[in-house]
Order: sequence, then structure tokens, then C-alpha cells
Amino acid sequence: MKRLALVNFLLFVSVILLHAQTDLTKYVDPWIGTDGGGNTFPGSCVPFGMVKAGPVCGQKNRNSGWDKDGNIHGFSHVNLSGLGGGCKYGNVLFAPVVGEINIQDYSSPRRNEKAELGIYEVELQKYNTSARLTALNRSTMHEYSFPEGTESKILVDLGTFLASLASVNEQQIFVGSEVRIISDHEMEGYTRIRNGWNKGNAYTVYFYAVFDTPAADYGTWKGDKMMPGVKEQFDTNEKTGAYFTYHTKDKQSIKFKVGISYLSVGKAKANLSEMTTWNFDEVKEQCVAVWNKLLNKVHLKGSEENKKIFYTALYHSHMQPADKIGENSKWQSDQPYYDDFYAIWDTFRASHPLFTLLTPSIQADMLRSLLDIYRYDGYMPDARSGDDNGRVQGGSNCDILFADAIRKGIRGIDYQLALEAMIKNAEVPPGGNEQKQGRGGIPDYNTKGYVSTKYERSASRTMEYGNCDYAIYTVASELSQPEIAKKYLNRSKNWQNLWNPDIESLGFKGFVWPRREDGSWLSESEFSVFKNGTWPDIFYETYSWEMSFYAPHDINKLIELCGGKDTFIDRLDTFFSYQRSNRRGYIGLFQISNEPSFLIPCLYNYAGRPDKTAEITRRALREQYNTTRTGLPGNDDSGSMSAWYIFHALGFFPNAGQDIYLFSSPIFEEATIFFENKNKLEIRAKNASEANIYIQSVKLNEKPINVNFIKHSDLISGGTLEFVMGPKPSKWGNNEIR
Amino acid sequence: MKRLALVNFLLFVSVILLHAQTDLTKYVDPWIGTDGGGNTFPGSCVPFGMVKAGPVCGQKNRNSGWDKDGNIHGFSHVNLSGLGGGCKYGNVLFAPVVGEINIQDYSSPRRNEKAELGIYEVELQKYNTSARLTALNRSTMHEYSFPEGTESKILVDLGTFLASLASVNEQQIFVGSEVRIISDHEMEGYTRIRNGWNKGNAYTVYFYAVFDTPAADYGTWKGDKMMPGVKEQFDTNEKTGAYFTYHTKDKQSIKFKVGISYLSVGKAKANLSEMTTWNFDEVKEQCVAVWNKLLNKVHLKGSEENKKIFYTALYHSHMQPADKIGENSKWQSDQPYYDDFYAIWDTFRASHPLFTLLTPSIQADMLRSLLDIYRYDGYMPDARSGDDNGRVQGGSNCDILFADAIRKGIRGIDYQLALEAMIKNAEVPPGGNEQKQGRGGIPDYNTKGYVSTKYERSASRTMEYGNCDYAIYTVASELSQPEIAKKYLNRSKNWQNLWNPDIESLGFKGFVWPRREDGSWLSESEFSVFKNGTWPDIFYETYSWEMSFYAPHDINKLIELCGGKDTFIDRLDTFFSYQRSNRRGYIGLFQISNEPSFLIPCLYNYAGRPDKTAEITRRALREQYNTTRTGLPGNDDSGSMSAWYIFHALGFFPNAGQDIYLFSSPIFEEATIFFENKNKLEIRAKNASEANIYIQSVKLNEKPINVNFIKHSDLISGGTLEFVMGPKPSKWGNNEIR
Repeated sequence: MKRLALVNFLLFVSVILLHAQTDLTKYVDPWIGTDGGGNTFPGSCVPFGMVKAGPVCGQKNRNSGWDKDGNIHGFSHVNLSGLGGGCKYGNVLFAPVVGEINIQDYSSPRRNEKAELGIYEVELQKYNTSARLTALNRSTMHEYSFPEGTESKILVDLGTFLASLASVNEQQIFVGSEVRIISDHEMEGYTRIRNGWNKGNAYTVYFYAVFDTPAADYGTWKGDKMMPGVKEQFDTNEKTGAYFTYHTKDKQSIKFKVGISYLSVGKAKANLSEMTTWNFDEVKEQCVAVWNKLLNKVHLKGSEENKKIFYTALYHSHMQPADKIGENSKWQSDQPYYDDFYAIWDTFRASHPLFTLLTPSIQADMLRSLLDIYRYDGYMPDARSGDDNGRVQGGSNCDILFADAIRKGIRGIDYQLALEAMIKNAEVPPGGNEQKQGRGGIPDYNTKGYVSTKYERSASRTMEYGNCDYAIYTVASELSQPEIAKKYLNRSKNWQNLWNPDIESLGFKGFVWPRREDGSWLSESEFSVFKNGTWPDIFYETYSWEMSFYAPHDINKLIELCGGKDTFIDRLDTFFSYQRSNRRGYIGLFQISNEPSFLIPCLYNYAGRPDKTAEITRRALREQYNTTRTGLPGNDDSGSMSAWYIFHALGFFPNAGQDIYLFSSPIFEEATIFFENKNKLEIRAKNASEANIYIQSVKLNEKPINVNFIKHSDLISGGTLEFVMGPKPSKWGNNEIR
Repeated sequence: MKRLALVNFLLFVSVILLHAQTDLTKYVDPWIGTDGGGNTFPGSCVPFGMVKAGPVCGQKNRNSGWDKDGNIHGFSHVNLSGLGGGCKYGNVLFAPVVGEINIQDYSSPRRNEKAELGIYEVELQKYNTSARLTALNRSTMHEYSFPEGTESKILVDLGTFLASLASVNEQQIFVGSEVRIISDHEMEGYTRIRNGWNKGNAYTVYFYAVFDTPAADYGTWKGDKMMPGVKEQFDTNEKTGAYFTYHTKDKQSIKFKVGISYLSVGKAKANLSEMTTWNFDEVKEQCVAVWNKLLNKVHLKGSEENKKIFYTALYHSHMQPADKIGENSKWQSDQPYYDDFYAIWDTFRASHPLFTLLTPSIQADMLRSLLDIYRYDGYMPDARSGDDNGRVQGGSNCDILFADAIRKGIRGIDYQLALEAMIKNAEVPPGGNEQKQGRGGIPDYNTKGYVSTKYERSASRTMEYGNCDYAIYTVASELSQPEIAKKYLNRSKNWQNLWNPDIESLGFKGFVWPRREDGSWLSESEFSVFKNGTWPDIFYETYSWEMSFYAPHDINKLIELCGGKDTFIDRLDTFFSYQRSNRRGYIGLFQISNEPSFLIPCLYNYAGRPDKTAEITRRALREQYNTTRTGLPGNDDSGSMSAWYIFHALGFFPNAGQDIYLFSSPIFEEATIFFENKNKLEIRAKNASEANIYIQSVKLNEKPINVNFIKHSDLISGGTLEFVMGPKPSKWGNNEIR
């Protein structure tokens, strides 16, 4: 035993020596992207935390719960970062109030709102109270400060959920709640909610709260009826809540811990065992320490501003999916359980590849969780929240995660089962609700070779299914199952069936175009290459001009259909420069604020023009990302925007599902990545500056790399990746990728 | 106010005068059908009771929990009556034990087991304890008696569920449990289970128990580890339980109440409010009183034996589905909520038509509940249990319930929504799990006009879809939507596409026969008219000979395909007389023990031979039903066998989905039905005896009925329905039904 301990100690020391931990938390600013549609979450949580504790503001809430406008209601325990559409969560809300509680509206103006890594603070002006909160994975600590008086109250509202700015059918709907005051310093209960963005079945959030100060009095409510002295409210499908009353001296602070569970009040109480102290700052430091460990996976040399953007991006990209291991109320399993895949349509492109690079063991756990969902719920999700699959925006993009993983050598995955689940996506129609899971419209796709306009999102689906089919080909190939591989490689070319060579726009011929059931094309008077759409439309959150670049698995064919390399480059140039007038003025065709554009800048690499990739990505990094509250190009989409930044800041970007990272243009003089395999990669970008954006040469461990891409194994083998940067395009990397 | 009270009093008196309540409970014997495969439930419950409290016996349990063999484990709270296949429920088990608890096996031999309406009693030999229990809708009372000692214990086991004799994939699977001892006379907790026969998602049964005697000591356990003095076990996906210890004098009895809920422990406690006394016999009398009110809907004059069979059948047919109003954890709604439709494939034929006759307001509530399930879960169920749809054995037979209801004038149903839900069944494939809901194989059925052998249960599905399509036609017609009506009337003839005129058996030509995807028939060497099957087979719990009589909506066409009336009668004669050898000896083709044969005896009426219907049904009533524990022909199937008995004993049987009751042969001299509309129908069967089984004439309110069927409105208008019976067939009713 002693020998073992010594070995462990030596290992520990060697890790220390290899990888000195620095305090990087000052580079995280939770406010970045909270406003201007970024919808990032300014509250407290640990990486992939099941509990995300933060403020609820306004009447119609933003998706993170926080809004710059409107009163503050209190602090809820289950939230999401970087979401759009109908809200989800915002449940189990506590608030420090004074006087009689007006259940209809106990909100207050706020002041001195502060957030930094691990802590959120605010003052509730109406009550002259203040609050600060911090969180671990399944628990929170709140510290509330009160004025002098006998009517200081802490309430818990079990009727709350985020009310959406979005359409009616994506609203959350209350199902039931229950509360019980156990003693003068303990309460417990739950709230049950359904629907929301993913239109999911009901989920239940249980809580147990323990307070450091005995209450002088207590009460509960049901609906709008207050019941002082009543200890319990059982579930009658009505909204309930409870409160403790305290006699406080001026500025007296009261602390309490809240355990959260999706199983039961007992488990919620048990989950508090992770919080071993009543010292608020100590809990906050524990939260910060976990983040610091994650942030230390990358060390940077560069401007303070860029480091702040980068580390905050790293922070935001590691908030979801939520680690709910041991918290699955649907089945018992020895597999990990993650929830809030929100949505893989967004995250397969950059976020999951980032996990694969930095935290492959967690990525493996997530994939095992997806397979367990397939085992028990019947389909892997394209999105999932509140323990229920839904919704699918286009393809079954979870397929791509497994292709990406197998090509990059992620171990511990039952890839044979994954192949089965992927083939189910491809072959078995998902039933009445085609937005829930699987692939909609496959009765068309699998017979005609395209999804016809009879179905929703016909063009998006067809295009995405191509790449998903290629993912099946990839996994089948790796598993040496050539017949399956061949079938899906052929099918992955189906996207070409929507390529209409006669459509012309801005001087370019050939675009992805909707086709009817009988094979005929929609006429140009019926449709437009600029027509964007949503759920019931032909393109989902994209349009033909953009989606006519979406064949990430078949780019050479795409280049050919576009008329060859030169025309393709011209077409990209037009895409990135053309400004179209719309009601609000001029907008570009390129929308880095949404995922369908994510890979397009790197398509220049395929045509041998990485200098243009550098121009576009550098411009996006410079113009679209900053350290302000509106510092993200758009909705962070569970950290997708942030992950896009991270890759390009490091100088490369993945084509997800394939073992290829396209070089773009590194912005940091030095960046060191500490991999899970204990290797480290020092990325040096000699002469890199705002002017020197063009790669002149690349060397990996002194050996020149003349192609404009790199493989995963080369990165994680570690060593030195040296870029020489210059102010003008060079000849480096000007070969097409074949 | 006084006038109103007087009016009410007069109404009350008039009801009394019209309908004197008799104590009919002595005619109910809960043991009938418990053995020999009947699987009826011998424990205590109210009509449609959510709580069904009864014994759990044996290691592999029968579906009702009770078995004639094996030890008794204790008394569980959620059960089903008359089920086969994989078990469901058997949760929250209490037992009176003495000494150290062996969690692996605390079961005991039993003696003096007794059951009568409202009460179940037994002695646990091993412990020298005894128990009796009774139940209301959401609660039970137990009374346990102990020997003298300090180790008398009452345990609750939250790890229990019925372990099935059936196949592995229909087993229930434990998910989690939790328990908490609240005081020396209160405990609460839950158990969470998934799968079972319907392969449903996890459901959670919560309990709260309050005891009339303070415990001297207590403890809990987790897995197999006993923890004396430990008050709580939170959910770790392991089995838990708890116990109270008492110091008892000899024969000391301890009573306790258990509230049950599917929402929460708080709701379980609140549900105890229905039990207002600690007097065991009073609670039992409340249970009995509810039954007595139901039993009094029919008054009989006839043999005590037949009355016992009849009233017990009435009892057994009103146990399911379960009234779970206010207990739906999935959505909030102003609609009623029923669960344990188990399965409509069984119950649409006789049970639901019986509700329509005797308790139409409850039938309406059940239908409204099915529509609410459609609203929120996406499909109406063919079976549902533990709040989850599944499984569909053949057609979407809920369709037929709505056709039956609209034709029989049941009010308060949103038939337009029903039509929408029925069309969804018919048109929208249910997705990857075709056993869950909707109609499987419709990509075939809706294009080829039959389900090909590519799909499971292809012949059963095709045949049942015909009748279901006819139900859509029926509802659409009643709603004056002729285009929909026409479409589905045409489609309802699809069953004819499986009629193979070349197949010959026992001298008859033309049988339902499996067809391949390409339209070709299976060869006679590949298949047989006698081949029975289950889930993956061509016929589900039936075979071609039997299913070649299944066109309840198109019987004239069936008669024509069979070669005309005379051949059809010959074919029926053969069906009812032929004995086929199998491994266990000789068996008939007619299987009244299963539902596909339910209507076949009455097909003689359609060919103008009601005398033969009389012979077959009278023989079945005489030979297959009695007052013993094996007194049912087979699995009661939620009371379906019992409902079949009730109708034929009264002298008519419904063709479900149509407004037609076929006359068979009444066995009671007099039977009076008291309808909900306050009308009463006196059915007199003059000269009826074991010899006089043939109808000589029928009069309704003195007017002769010469056809061999009657309409619903004629029955519920009340008056006198007079049969004259005789020892020989008469000419009465010998016209074919057109």
C-alpha cells in the first residue's frame, strides 16, 4: 500500500512539473455574450454542471433566465446557457424578500449586479436585501443579507419556470408541485414542468434546502392563497411555495444550501453531501478550482483581451450537456447519463470536437450516454432536455459524433451498437412526431434519394442526411463492414439530387433547390436562393446560397458542380462579400452567428486558398467577438459560437466526422495544449499579429507541413506546431485537398 | 332551498321505489377464476379502483399476484385482474413478520386464506401472524395480528414487483426506491419500476402509511443491508424498505392505513382523506357499498349458482381500467384520466360495450381520457399501463370504442377530435416501436391494401385494420363528413385482399392467407390454416381458421366469399365441432378462452340461424363458466371473459362498433337492468331452462321482434323484453341480417 501511495505521489509530482496550474479565472467574464442575443448564463455552475444557479429577470425571460431589463424575481437552480427559441427550466426559485409576500409579483428592481467565475451577486432594491450565490454540481449555496426587522423572509417558489419570448407552442407548461417545511431550518419539495423548446414530456426537479439560522416563523401557499403556519402543500396540479420568516438585525446574513435532484427529495438531500462546509467563499473556491483545472488545459501568450475572450469561450463551451450521472429517473444503468444536448445540430460542428481534443474521456462518456438513450428510449437524440428527446432540426447529427470519435480514436465506445443506432436513424421512420428524434421524411429520402417538399425542411434534411450517411459509412468502414459502408457511401451522395444546375444567382449557376414528390423542381417564382426558414419551411435556419456549400463529406464533388476550383473560389468570395438589402438594411450572406456557416470559411482550404480562410476567420474573430456583454456573434448555442472561436484562435478548425483540421490563422503568439494523454502541444505563431494573418509555413516537430490541414493524431502526439505568419499570402498550402 | 330539498327527497324516494337496493354482495366470490389461468385478482378494491390491495405469492408470480402454490410474501397495493404475459405492478408490499427480517426471503406458508367482497384475510404460518385488508380507491387499511413478543414487525418492501413466468423481455425492471420513517407511527416512500408486459417507461408509486400504534423501534434497509435505527434511505437505484417493531401481547392487532399516489408522497398522504375511520369493518363496508350499488344495476331471478357466476362476472368486469383522475404526473388537464387499458384488443368486444350499457357516464369518461392521451402523448392507446402506451396486438381498436359510442348516442365526447385521432392511427406510422401505439405496417396496408409478411402479425393486422377503418367510416358518417367516410369505407374492405380462394381445409375453400410484399401468397407448405402465433408471427393469438371469420363489419361479404349462406353455416358448424389433435390431445377450433372467437357464435344470426347461436353460447356458458376457482374459460383479460358471460346470460351480444346486439339465449327467468337514464328494462325469458334454450319469439313492450337482433336505443328505452323459450329451434329470426 505504501509503495502504491508513493507511485501515486510521484505521478502527481510529475503532473505538477509537466503542467503547472495557473490561476486563469480572472480571464473568465460570465457577462460576455449575456446580451445582444448571445444568451449566455451569468450565474454559477461547474463544468457540465447539472445545477446552474442564476437570476430570473423580466416577465418574458431570456433563455438564460437573465435579462438586462426588468425586475429580478429571484434565483433558480436549473438553467441553460446560450439557447434560443422556447425557454426551458428556470425552476426552484429562491428569493430574499421583506414584508408581506405578493405571490403575483414579488420581483424587485436590482442594483450592484456582479458576476464572476463561481459567484453571482445582486441587491434587491425593493426589499433592501442582497444575495450572492455559488454552485457545485448538484447543490448551491445562497447567502442573503437583510435589513433590520421581523419580516425578513426567504421564499421558495415551486411554480416558476422561464416564460418564453418565443411562440406559444414552445412554452413551458406547469404540471404540479409540492412543498413541505420539515423543521425551522429545512424544507423540501418539487416542481413538475413539461414542454418548452424541445416539446418534451414532464420532468420533475426536487430540492432539499437547509438553513444556517432557525426561522422565527413559516408558511406556505397554493395558487394565490397564502397559508401562514401551514407546513405542507401536496400536489394538486397547482403552484405552491413556502417561506421562512426571520427577525433580523441590520445587514444580518442568512446562508442556506440547496440540494437538487431529478429523482427525489431524498436524493436532493443526499446530493448536498458534495458541499462539506458552511463557508460561502470556500464553496465558491471549490467551484472555481474545477473550472481552473479545465482552463489550464490551454496556456496562452497573447493580448489580455484575447485571453479573456478565449478563456471565457472555453468556459461557455463547457456548460452543456449536463452531467446527470446517477440522476436518471427513467432507467437504471452502469452507463453515464448526460442530458441537455441542446442541440447536437449546433454542437457537433465545433463543441464536441473541442471536447474530443481537450476532454476526450468526457466526450466518451457523453457518447456512451447517447448509446444508453438509444438502448432505452429507442433513438439517439439530436437534441434532448428534461430527460426527453427532441427536437430534430435537420439531420440525425449524433451520427457525426460517432464518426468523429472513431476516426479520432476515442476508446471505450461500443461502436457496433452505435452503428446499429445510426442505421436505425437512417432506416426507421420516427413516427407521428418527426421533430422528436430520428430522421423525418425518409420514406422519400430512402426511395427517391431526396426529401420532397411534401415534408417540412425538405432541403435542409436532404443536405444533412448526406453527411449523416457519410458518418455511417465512416463507422462501418472502421468496423470492417464493407457492404454497409458501400450502401451509405452511395447514399451520402443523395444531396446531389437537390442540385439544380439551372438556378442562377449573382452570376453563379447551380444551387440546392426544392423538389416536389414527382421529381419536378419548384419554379423560380415559387422560391428563392435567399429564402431563409424555420420548422415548417424548406430550409431550416439557412437558405440555398448558404446550404449550397453544405457537403462537408463531398467537397470535391461540390467544387465540380460549382464549375471547378476557380468558380468555387469566386463563389466563396461573393458569399463572403455580397451585401443584400433586407428590411433592416444590408446583411451579408455569411452568417457566422448561426451554425450552417461554421465550416464555409475553411472551404477555401479545399480549393488551395488557405490565405482566404485566414482573412475570413481573422475578420470574424476581430469583428464578431469581444469582451463586452454583446461580445458574441449570436446565440452561443450551448457554447458553439465559443468553440468556433477557440479553434480558429488556435489556428485550425475541424471538419466534424472526419479526421481533418483545416488550418486557418492562429492569433496567439504561443498556445500550449495539455492533453489528457499527458502529451502537450506547443503551438507557436511566429510574427502573428493583426497584420500578419497569413501562414507562410508550418512545421510539426521541425518537419514541414505543406498541406493546409492536420490530423488528430498529429495534434495529440504533442510537441511543437510552429507557424510562421506574414502580412501577405504565401504559396504555402495552395494545393487542393483531395 | 326548502322546495329544492323536497324535490330532491321526492326524487330520492322515487328512485328507491323504482330501484330498491338489495344486498347482492353474497353473490360475489373473488376466488372465481383465480386459478386455472383465469388470473383474477382475489384482493380488495372498489370498481375501477386505482388501488388494488392483495397478496403476493410464489417466486414467479401469477399476473394477479396471487397463486395457489408457494409462500406468501405480503400484500401489495397496485395490481391488475385477469392478465397474461409479462406481469405489471405488485408494488409497495407490506407484511407482518416476527424476529429478524431476512430480506432475501421473508415469505411464509399460509393458512386460512379467505376472500370475500371488500376483504382478504390470511395467516402467515411461519410467524404466527395474521392479516386482513380492505381498500378504497386510493387507500387501504391493513389489520395485522401478532403473537406475544418484542420482535413483532411490520415491514414495507419498496423493491418488490411481480416477477413474471413469461419471457425475459416482458419482465418488470427495478429503477429506484426511497423510504423515510417520519415518526413512530408514520412512514412514506416510493418505488420506481419500468417495462413489464406493455414495455412501458418508468412509473413511480408513492405511499404514505399511518399506524394506530406507536412503534417501539424501527429500521430501514438498502440492498441486503439492514440498518436498525436508520430513518431514511434515499434513492441510489437500489432496493429499500423499512420496518416498525412492536412489543405485542398475544393476538394483539395493529392497524394501519396506506395512501397511494402516482404523483408524490404528499398526494399519497392527502389521498388518505377518503378513509375517515379507523374502524376496519366500516372501511370494508364502504368498499362493499360501492360494489353493491354497481351490482344492483341488474336484478336477477334464476339459480343461485348462475347468479353467483353473473354477479362475480359483473365484479370482475369492472376492475379495470383504473380511475386515476387527479393522479396524472404527465400533464395537467380538466379531462378525466384512466390508466390500465389492458388491452383494448381484449376489452373493445364485450367489456366496453357493457360499460356503455350499464355505466355510460364512466364509459364517456374513459373515452375522454383516451382523447386526452391522444392530445398529450400523440396517439390513443390500444393498451396502456403505468402511464405509458403499449402494446398493440393487432389493430388500433380504440377506434371501435368511438364508433360504438357515437352509434349508441354516448354524449360529452369530442367526436371530431376522436376522428382526428383515429385518422392519425390510420395514416401516421407510429415509428420505430410499432408495438407501442398506432398501426404497424401501414406503409404496406395504405399502399398495397394489405400488410405483407415483411411485417409482424401481418394477417392479424390486415384483418383488424378493416374493422378499424369501418369505425372511422362510422364516426365520419355520423359527423357528416362523406369524403372521409367514403375513403375509409372503401379501405375497410382491404381484408378481402388477404382472402385466398384457393386454400382448402376440412372441405371448405377460401381462407385468410399471408401475402408477401410482391403480392404473392405463401405456399401451403410454408403455412397452415391451423398455425397459431404471437408477436413476431403472422397471426397474433389466433390462426387462419378462426380469423377467416373476422370481418365483423362486412359479414355479408364474408358469407359470399365463403360460398353463400349454407356453406357458411356448414363452415361454422365445422368450426364449432371439429377437434384437432395436438401435442396435448384434442382441441377444438373454437377458443372462447380468447377474444378472436368472441363474436363467432353470433355469426349464425347473420345467416338466419340464431338457434345455432343459442346452442353454442349456452354450451359455452354451461361448460366453461362455473363458481370454482377455475371457473373461467381462460384468462379473464381485464374482465372480458366475464363480460362475454354477462351479455349471453342476458340473451344478447354486441357487435362492437355497430348499433346491433345479436340475440343468443337468455338463461335467467327474469333480469332487470336499471339504466343510468333511470329507465329499466325487464328481460323475461319464459320457460327458459337448460333444455329450453331456443328462442320461439321475442316481444319488446308487447310488440313482436322478428329479426334476431336489437338496437341500443330499444334496450335503454326500457320496458319489457319478453322471450319465449322452447326445447326446439323455431322459425323465429331465421332471416339473414342484411
